[in-house]
Amino acid sequence: MTKNMAAVMYEVGDVRLEERPMPKPGPHEVLVQVTAVGVCGSDVHYYRHGRIGSFVVERPIILGHESAGVIVELGSEARKHRIGARVALEPGVPCGRCEVCRSGHYNLCPHVQFFATPPIDGAFTNFVTIHEDFAFALPNGMSDEAGGLLEPMSVGIWAAKKADIQCGQHVLITGAGPIGMVSMMAAFAFGATEVTMTDISEERLAFARKLGATHTINVASTPLLDEAIEVDAFIECSGNPSALQDGIRCIRPAGRAAVVGMGGGDEASVPLSLIQTREITLAGVFRYANTYPTAIELVSSGKVNLDALVTGRYSLAETDAVLRQFGKEPANVKPVILPQE
Amino acid sequence: MTKNMAAVMYEVGDVRLEERPMPKPGPHEVLVQVTAVGVCGSDVHYYRHGRIGSFVVERPIILGHESAGVIVELGSEARKHRIGARVALEPGVPCGRCEVCRSGHYNLCPHVQFFATPPIDGAFTNFVTIHEDFAFALPNGMSDEAGGLLEPMSVGIWAAKKADIQCGQHVLITGAGPIGMVSMMAAFAFGATEVTMTDISEERLAFARKLGATHTINVASTPLLDEAIEVDAFIECSGNPSALQDGIRCIRPAGRAAVVGMGGGDEASVPLSLIQTREITLAGVFRYANTYPTAIELVSSGKVNLDALVTGRYSLAETDAVLRQFGKEPANVKPVILPQE
Amino acid sequence: MTKNMAAVMYEVGDVRLEERPMPKPGPHEVLVQVTAVGVCGSDVHYYRHGRIGSFVVERPIILGHESAGVIVELGSEARKHRIGARVALEPGVPCGRCEVCRSGHYNLCPHVQFFATPPIDGAFTNFVTIHEDFAFALPNGMSDEAGGLLEPMSVGIWAAKKADIQCGQHVLITGAGPIGMVSMMAAFAFGATEVTMTDISEERLAFARKLGATHTINVASTPLLDEAIEVDAFIECSGNPSALQDGIRCIRPAGRAAVVGMGGGDEASVPLSLIQTREITLAGVFRYANTYPTAIELVSSGKVNLDALVTGRYSLAETDAVLRQFGKEPANVKPVILPQE
Amino acid sequence: MTKNMAAVMYEVGDVRLEERPMPKPGPHEVLVQVTAVGVCGSDVHYYRHGRIGSFVVERPIILGHESAGVIVELGSEARKHRIGARVALEPGVPCGRCEVCRSGHYNLCPHVQFFATPPIDGAFTNFVTIHEDFAFALPNGMSDEAGGLLEPMSVGIWAAKKADIQCGQHVLITGAGPIGMVSMMAAFAFGATEVTMTDISEERLAFARKLGATHTINVASTPLLDEAIEVDAFIECSGNPSALQDGIRCIRPAGRAAVVGMGGGDEASVPLSLIQTREITLAGVFRYANTYPTAIELVSSGKVNLDALVTGRYSLAETDAVLRQFGKEPANVKPVILPQE
Repeated sequence: MTKNMAAVMYEVGDVRLEERPMPKPGPHEVLVQVTAVGVCGSDVHYYRHGRIGSFVVERPIILGHESAGVIVELGSEARKHRIGARVALEPGVPCGRCEVCRSGHYNLCPHVQFFATPPIDGAFTNFVTIHEDFAFALPNGMSDEAGGLLEPMSVGIWAAKKADIQCGQHVLITGAGPIGMVSMMAAFAFGATEVTMTDISEERLAFARKLGATHTINVASTPLLDEAIEVDAFIECSGNPSALQDGIRCIRPAGRAAVVGMGGGDEASVPLSLIQTREITLAGVFRYANTYPTAIELVSSGKVNLDALVTGRYSLAETDAVLRQFGKEPANVKPVILPQE
Repeated sequence: MTKNMAAVMYEVGDVRLEERPMPKPGPHEVLVQVTAVGVCGSDVHYYRHGRIGSFVVERPIILGHESAGVIVELGSEARKHRIGARVALEPGVPCGRCEVCRSGHYNLCPHVQFFATPPIDGAFTNFVTIHEDFAFALPNGMSDEAGGLLEPMSVGIWAAKKADIQCGQHVLITGAGPIGMVSMMAAFAFGATEVTMTDISEERLAFARKLGATHTINVASTPLLDEAIEVDAFIECSGNPSALQDGIRCIRPAGRAAVVGMGGGDEASVPLSLIQTREITLAGVFRYANTYPTAIELVSSGKVNLDALVTGRYSLAETDAVLRQFGKEPANVKPVILPQE
Repeated sequence: MTKNMAAVMYEVGDVRLEERPMPKPGPHEVLVQVTAVGVCGSDVHYYRHGRIGSFVVERPIILGHESAGVIVELGSEARKHRIGARVALEPGVPCGRCEVCRSGHYNLCPHVQFFATPPIDGAFTNFVTIHEDFAFALPNGMSDEAGGLLEPMSVGIWAAKKADIQCGQHVLITGAGPIGMVSMMAAFAFGATEVTMTDISEERLAFARKLGATHTINVASTPLLDEAIEVDAFIECSGNPSALQDGIRCIRPAGRAAVVGMGGGDEASVPLSLIQTREITLAGVFRYANTYPTAIELVSSGKVNLDALVTGRYSLAETDAVLRQFGKEPANVKPVILPQE
Repeated sequence: MTKNMAAVMYEVGDVRLEERPMPKPGPHEVLVQVTAVGVCGSDVHYYRHGRIGSFVVERPIILGHESAGVIVELGSEARKHRIGARVALEPGVPCGRCEVCRSGHYNLCPHVQFFATPPIDGAFTNFVTIHEDFAFALPNGMSDEAGGLLEPMSVGIWAAKKADIQCGQHVLITGAGPIGMVSMMAAFAFGATEVTMTDISEERLAFARKLGATHTINVASTPLLDEAIEVDAFIECSGNPSALQDGIRCIRPAGRAAVVGMGGGDEASVPLSLIQTREITLAGVFRYANTYPTAIELVSSGKVNLDALVTGRYSLAETDAVLRQFGKEPANVKPVILPQE
């Protein structure tokens, strides 16, 4: 525990393993030895493009924000946890004071410090610090890997909430990548009885069926609209403009769409007259708020199995290779870095 | 099919089997051969007391409102179903025009015609008619008995909605009778991860555990408040004034209570200062609206198993005995009358 | 009262005054002598294009759906009103039985019979019949013209509801035509403290200021985004694609857009990444539901002055000329036909 | 400005003017010279009983929490305001980190530091410090007295929100004291078209009518239920058990009650069977959250006139007398202390 090795991104396509100083927890922070970190599409996007929208990698940065670990030191005022506790880390710490924070929308806080979002370092490293209130104790029986994946699960929960999924409803999710998968898990946990998943990868759709999808459509061969499905709610997770358009056309009157997938450009075309005559509601989704306790409940009760989502395990030294390879093997939906191996 | 036998309540404690004329469906109605009818506490209440609140049995009435059957004749304008279709019957047909109907609260319609609510006859009989829009086709694989129990399941769904149960929440339900049971099933279907049930019957609590309760408290021996539980939502199903009071005291700040159980009197004492300082919301629950499609989804998807709720099966001739006996064997939570046997 | 003259549209640009048979009220209907009918952009659209979307004028039709009048005959079962009562007519009568009707979204009823929507005749005529429940008694002191304009006011109320306008909020409305005006009135009635209106007509903006707009922007000369306003809610009433786009860019994080204006095509481009990162909700708006009682309250309490909206009064014989001229004099925001003159 | 005089409560019925040390603002705090402080019923309750529920005055305390003033010093990190700014003070500073804070319910924060709630000192003094984010800049033209009264106005806004008052609705408010008055103002600002106020003081009811009440009932002579009114929403502000009961009986089906008034005991009797059969929702109200910006908008737009609420102005030295006298002259609804006079 004396060394803090980190996978540091220097520039596009260049992540190097190097030693970093051991971080010191602030008064209300805890020092966490990181044991599992999921690899997210946004990590890959920074790795390949050096930016996401207005967030630009301008100096070396540690990526990774889906993390769990063990508390090894407490800040002087930290009272919430004890040393040795296994915790999941909610990676964005908002200010808690501004208007959006005070009204419960802390995911929109302009002052948030979010792991792996330039210039804030993330969790592909041995040790990180975080505010004690954003470390969540893991129940016995819940793996560290599942703890790390509470982060994408949070995105799924938030998307299901924004899509206002209710008990007994039918849901369409376009895109069977990791976010599509957790959105499906969330949809079922919210009470959905049917979830249709679309993708262009047969392997991903097979994985989706294994995780519970009641219906899958390979839109590489079958246009979505050919299936003539009607759903109560739609979650867009592919970032594909035509998936957004076609998906909206599948929504019943008074239904809802939640848009998670980040597409190419700033704008997108939507079937507006349909949105009007069917009184469809379309909601943007950005990160999540107050989801960690829910996610922990879902995993510990057995309603959601996050371990089933892990498709590969890698050492910290393999981070560069994993980021480079991501997406080229569609079945490797969720690789996880184990920094202590 | 030429005879229409019915179990007719003449006065308190007096239900007789007799032949009634075959009903004729109106233009938009269907004629249904009844195959299964659950026995509800309200049937029993009419049987024993001759009234519920302002509804008084003043002339012979057929009780029973948890029914399913087979369509055997269509009214002249009925287009929604075909003869031979197995259907569940939503027993209350509202006017569809008044202010509450138009705003989606049709369960509050003052003009509703509701089975087994004086002076409207119910379903402890061989044949009934109903508006085609209040007959719901049963999917293959779903039993007629489950079809009948969509009615109490609807009460559970509505209670869960009024208690605003969300994914991952902890719920308290006081009273492990049939309505407590369906409320528990609904709570889980809404995503609850823990449901605590209370009752004074060990047999009922054992049944509740069999149906999924994560925690049970026998309040005959252990006062609820001794357990120091804290829940997100509370559904009162016992009609017991102290259950209401104690249950509210278990609700976390900003939590909700839904009150289903009908108690003795018109008034009840509630811990008002706690309701205020914790900003608890208390919602009254009356019947249900728009729940049948949801209930059918839950049963046909396997999320809810209504067949497991049936604890006894009886012929139409046994109706009087079943009503008389109801509640004396706590384990017989949900007897079902099979009018064709 | 023996003759029923009507302004009948035979084809595009051809409305003729002719005698029609006196309608007979059905059992639950009332016969109304029409005294005031507002002219709406949709009437004009049918007059000029012969269709709106999939609704096509295929045989002669009477336009007009913003009407009020006096009850002169009751159907055999009509009990709600008395002869001589002044009433406003909600022009769309839904089925009251289908799934959307039962859930309170009767504006989306696929079986609705709506005045002046092919093939249903409207109110540019001396007499019409309507279901008694869709005739609303006018309070003393409320003019028949205001009664007719409860219909567009309903659209404004519904838009304000869909935009979830709350007390103390700032609102942007693009398009200062009649629907923009009523949306502004509704926004203020919902508690908005600032309403910014945009248009390309200085006359309309002056009229908007007269009706209460706190800020106006002539987007013919000043691009909306130059003003750098930030609003809680946005109602699009112009049908202009760039108004939709620019308007959304003015919404604060977690704010809402409601889209009323019907534009040229089926699709529209929206700033999707902004909708996502700010978690904006966009809601389609189609007609209205349960708004007449609210609208009557607003007018009779003096919170809204619909008489101020009337900019011209015409006889039934002038209907063709009014429809032809509509929009060419921007200041003539709301012409009203008085069929009895 | 060198002296800080304060009205200090030593024990029940004993408030003394004495000098206190000048407070020093913490890093994110501002030092405020207090110019106006409203006197609230809770101040009076502490003065007379030495406690409110579990909050007990155990050592000398400065009361007063409805305050405004001028910033005279900034903490080392305070950036939001400038010296000389006139500000209203939101008197409760929550932790911003706990579960209720994060979910937008900061009024329920168990760690809140609230002015004049033992052991936290309040604002009947010359100078106070507060976190910069809980000081709200007053617009030009808004008086300091109105600034202080934003605090009770916040209670009214929150009550109106909890009662879910919508545009065009009828509202009943029991109790025409200061909280009843601000609840009425809020109800109208939310769009209510009729507000009925009850009280046993004719003077207060006359004041309510002056402030806009459309209907008043003196329940000393006319039982509320004799009036047979039906309202959409009800706000209880009297703390009187029978007002709560009778008020609930006036609510239409699917209507709401919000309970603000603190009564004698912990429990209260409610008409439960009516709450059930009408599906009424009853909501507890505790302080407020995110209301100051709304309150400022309402006052600065002229929708609400808080200056009209002020019925008496007093010096700091008169605090003891004002607290002793409070309520004995019913017309003196809202006395204000001006600490600089």
